[in-house]
Amino acid sequence: MAERAPRSADGQARWVAITREAASLIDAQGYHQTTMEDIAHAVGVRKPTLYHYFKSKEEILFWIHEDFINLLLERAEQHASRLSDEPSEELREVIADIIGLMATHRGSVRVFFEHHRELTDEYRGTLEAKRDRYQAYVEDVVRRGVKRGEFREVDPRLTSLALFGMCNWAYQWFRPDGGLATEEIADRFWGLLLEGLRAGNPASSTPTPQTAPSST
Amino acid sequence: MAERAPRSADGQARWVAITREAASLIDAQGYHQTTMEDIAHAVGVRKPTLYHYFKSKEEILFWIHEDFINLLLERAEQHASRLSDEPSEELREVIADIIGLMATHRGSVRVFFEHHRELTDEYRGTLEAKRDRYQAYVEDVVRRGVKRGEFREVDPRLTSLALFGMCNWAYQWFRPDGGLATEEIADRFWGLLLEGLRAGNPASSTPTPQTAPSST
Repeated sequence: MAERAPRSADGQARWVAITREAASLIDAQGYHQTTMEDIAHAVGVRKPTLYHYFKSKEEILFWIHEDFINLLLERAEQHASRLSDEPSEELREVIADIIGLMATHRGSVRVFFEHHRELTDEYRGTLEAKRDRYQAYVEDVVRRGVKRGEFREVDPRLTSLALFGMCNWAYQWFRPDGGLATEEIADRFWGLLLEGLRAGNPASSTPTPQTAPSST
Repeated sequence: MAERAPRSADGQARWVAITREAASLIDAQGYHQTTMEDIAHAVGVRKPTLYHYFKSKEEILFWIHEDFINLLLERAEQHASRLSDEPSEELREVIADIIGLMATHRGSVRVFFEHHRELTDEYRGTLEAKRDRYQAYVEDVVRRGVKRGEFREVDPRLTSLALFGMCNWAYQWFRPDGGLATEEIADRFWGLLLEGLRAGNPASSTPTPQTAPSST
């Protein structure tokens, strides 16, 4: 199993920097084409120094994934404690978190979405448990929204998969210099998910939680 | 540039079979790890026979992409001529087409979404033009829906990217034995995109095109 990140502030900063740099490199040239040599070179350290932080390329891949999912899980905990009575607002935050990563974790997003199958078994279990936990959290937000009468009687699993699709897919098309900022994209996606496309549906961008109970 | 598919029915069938088999293999073991030798072995032909159909692995990769996007473009043309006055119904068909591919083109979907960067320049241009054409088609459906007052005043580009995300992302989670059939998933996604999550929005699953004009 992977060791924890180093405890000292310097060590931790270096360790995060290596993880991010490795992610960009793997993003650019592919996981199998990237060697520890390449990563050391990109970070500007010698190979023994790199091995001081990570015992293998597989361990780096694991930590790229960990870094990413831990961030989402931490945010989820904050939202759950602050917004548990406002499922629509909570969904807005979830969407903003994921879309935000397209700008802040540019190199990691493709690695996270396309290279989880390359994780060795020892790492994959840990990661899948966390991914499942995050998915369960989003499903729970939907479920609470339905229960409170804020949302229609939708299937929480399919709805969360639709939400993940809308947001995660941005790794394929989002460009930092491509016009809209991530906050704006997140807000519009949230509006679309809440209000739908149909004309005549209320199009307000600040929905109140006290809507009519579900008719289904 | 790639040659066209063979003209004889037998040649054509064999050629499609090789493309599909190669897609499954690349899906399972990665593009860079797959050799022409592996593909010949999986299809059950000798290497010279494989080279009779495709002059390189890059050409096979190109045809996996071509096969996939041509199918979507053909369907799009049919919808556009049959349903151009019913944008919501047209969107329903688009969603059904893409989600349907998760079952019918199982091996190709991951290759299509994750390996377009591996296409050599000579092939990439052709493919990107077709992808752009398909995206423009979906944007146009949204634009017509807005113009007719069926849809709210949404951004056609962002809306089509949200739709592609919802649908394309299914390649990450759809399992043929996983419960809902693709038709059912497509129908629910369509309902969610049209009506949104909010309780109180009309939740009918058979919307009529004659709704109130947009209020924005």
